[in-house]
Amino acid sequence: MDSYAATLARMPALREAIEQHPERFRVLTGERPTGRLHLGHYFGTIRERVRLQDAGVETFVILADYQVITDRDSVGDVRGNVYDAVLDYLAAGLDPAASTVFTHSAVPALNQLLLPFLSLVTEAELHRNPTVKAELAASGRSLSGLLLTYPVHQAADILFCKGNLVPVGKDNLPHVEMTRTIARRFTERYGDVFPEPAALVTDTPELPGLDGRKMSKSYGNAIALGMTADETADAIRRAPTDSERTITYDPANRPGVSGLLATAAVVLDRTPEEIADEVGAAGAGALKRLTTEAVNEFLADHRARRASLTMSDAAAVIREGNARANAIAETTLDEVRAAMGMVY
Amino acid sequence: MDSYAATLARMPALREAIEQHPERFRVLTGERPTGRLHLGHYFGTIRERVRLQDAGVETFVILADYQVITDRDSVGDVRGNVYDAVLDYLAAGLDPAASTVFTHSAVPALNQLLLPFLSLVTEAELHRNPTVKAELAASGRSLSGLLLTYPVHQAADILFCKGNLVPVGKDNLPHVEMTRTIARRFTERYGDVFPEPAALVTDTPELPGLDGRKMSKSYGNAIALGMTADETADAIRRAPTDSERTITYDPANRPGVSGLLATAAVVLDRTPEEIADEVGAAGAGALKRLTTEAVNEFLADHRARRASLTMSDAAAVIREGNARANAIAETTLDEVRAAMGMVY
Repeated sequence: MDSYAATLARMPALREAIEQHPERFRVLTGERPTGRLHLGHYFGTIRERVRLQDAGVETFVILADYQVITDRDSVGDVRGNVYDAVLDYLAAGLDPAASTVFTHSAVPALNQLLLPFLSLVTEAELHRNPTVKAELAASGRSLSGLLLTYPVHQAADILFCKGNLVPVGKDNLPHVEMTRTIARRFTERYGDVFPEPAALVTDTPELPGLDGRKMSKSYGNAIALGMTADETADAIRRAPTDSERTITYDPANRPGVSGLLATAAVVLDRTPEEIADEVGAAGAGALKRLTTEAVNEFLADHRARRASLTMSDAAAVIREGNARANAIAETTLDEVRAAMGMVY
Repeated sequence: MDSYAATLARMPALREAIEQHPERFRVLTGERPTGRLHLGHYFGTIRERVRLQDAGVETFVILADYQVITDRDSVGDVRGNVYDAVLDYLAAGLDPAASTVFTHSAVPALNQLLLPFLSLVTEAELHRNPTVKAELAASGRSLSGLLLTYPVHQAADILFCKGNLVPVGKDNLPHVEMTRTIARRFTERYGDVFPEPAALVTDTPELPGLDGRKMSKSYGNAIALGMTADETADAIRRAPTDSERTITYDPANRPGVSGLLATAAVVLDRTPEEIADEVGAAGAGALKRLTTEAVNEFLADHRARRASLTMSDAAAVIREGNARANAIAETTLDEVRAAMGMVY
């Protein structure tokens, strides 16, 4: 917590520096392509990513396809999920001329960084990573080699492009810390190739799902950005509420009602309490109508832009991004080889 | 031990199959470039490698430069060690037109295989690997991520070229087993890309160092293939013997004398007991003269061939080998991506 408080305390100066000199920063951010992107992704990361891009910060977005199998046996429709995510990025304002969108599996020189980086961390340090612990517990499986080494892949994802700014929620701060440790140790041992990236902590509270639980595809409580208006209405209609007539915002005791309020609030840029007061005795039916209308209105432009794009647009963005990421990764890997004396 | 006995029992049939159909096999073998190659390498692996090549088996030799840092912080003169090894390979009869000699760090598509492969093994399986345990104990350090995942790198080294034959000593059998496990699990999950390689167990007993201990650069008890005749004479002169005059072969109680006898025996293709009888009461001085002469005569042609080669010959072999290894690795990685549905 001290480290978190210290990180938060650095945020105003960091945001100021980004605003003054966006050209000094390079952002790495991304997603695991495990399913369709939803409102939680939009408010958690995508919006911020577009803001940074529009402020003039060079942005790299990784679709971490290998990380799909850190905690499951099947890759699912990974290609469909990748293309679907690209359509949402484009619809949300990501500009493929300014931002590089690429897939993990397409960039061998990035992946090779895993080997020297693995030599810089101990097994004990990998075990201490809270995300590894949490994902291991959630997966209910034995710890795979891929999940154990996951923080090191993330370091390679960030450092291959010399990313020096990583937007993260509180939960992912330890990944950035591990990346900083790896960069520092590499520098100490072999010389200056990598920056120590800074975490840009987004302090927006996490948007809950429609039922008040953590928003997750597997709970069926998420509003995918690519849903139609009717699908959105259906999802909200099916959301569980309670038998108390008057609407109040009380996440602990009234998760369903509060999940709807939080959703309406975030898309309307209001507080859930205000909306609760407004709906009041009109009850859950009225709250659902209000939420449906608010979400559909908020997403209308996004969906219209999405509908104007095709899978081949998505494929073109990925092909171009992969080519750019490969060129950068190969340059970085050449520097790493030179620093390590492995030039033949 | 049962598994070892079973493996040994399969060797005659395997050797017969290699002789009948060398074109059905592809060998992967190699070294960590931590120092100059010595007589132990020659009799342990290099001689067998040249035999397989000359029998018509396609041979890949990896100089595993990243594996230098599995158990130490410094890469040392890795480039010098790589070139020096290549000179010994060439002098020993490796034909760069028939065999591909390459360095680990030069083949990104090979290294990328580490990621899908890490998803196929558990941390517990990595921990059970006896070589990891032994190297960890020998290193006296905390377990690094690179040492822990070392059996998976070896699987990638073998499988990138679809190697189906791996010459190993008994100690390295567990690596081949791990590679077979990874190949099998990949096939079950994603389809047929990789063969399950067979271990070709070389049953030659390990050549001890001049002092009877394990031959090792760090003990200074090894005769490097590239030493001059005078350096060889010096090294043998400095080897410790004991105060008993009559020479007998007794490795447990007379390690120094027995180390010299074993060295003379292997280069003369005789038994140490015979040589002990022959030297008898002439004592350690005579044994050292005999050993020096035998080793220098054995290595004379090798050294003459070495002396006719330059570092730029070595560099050319590595460049050509790396280009070939990259082409093969990229083809294999494309097949892996297709099998895993990661084609964009």
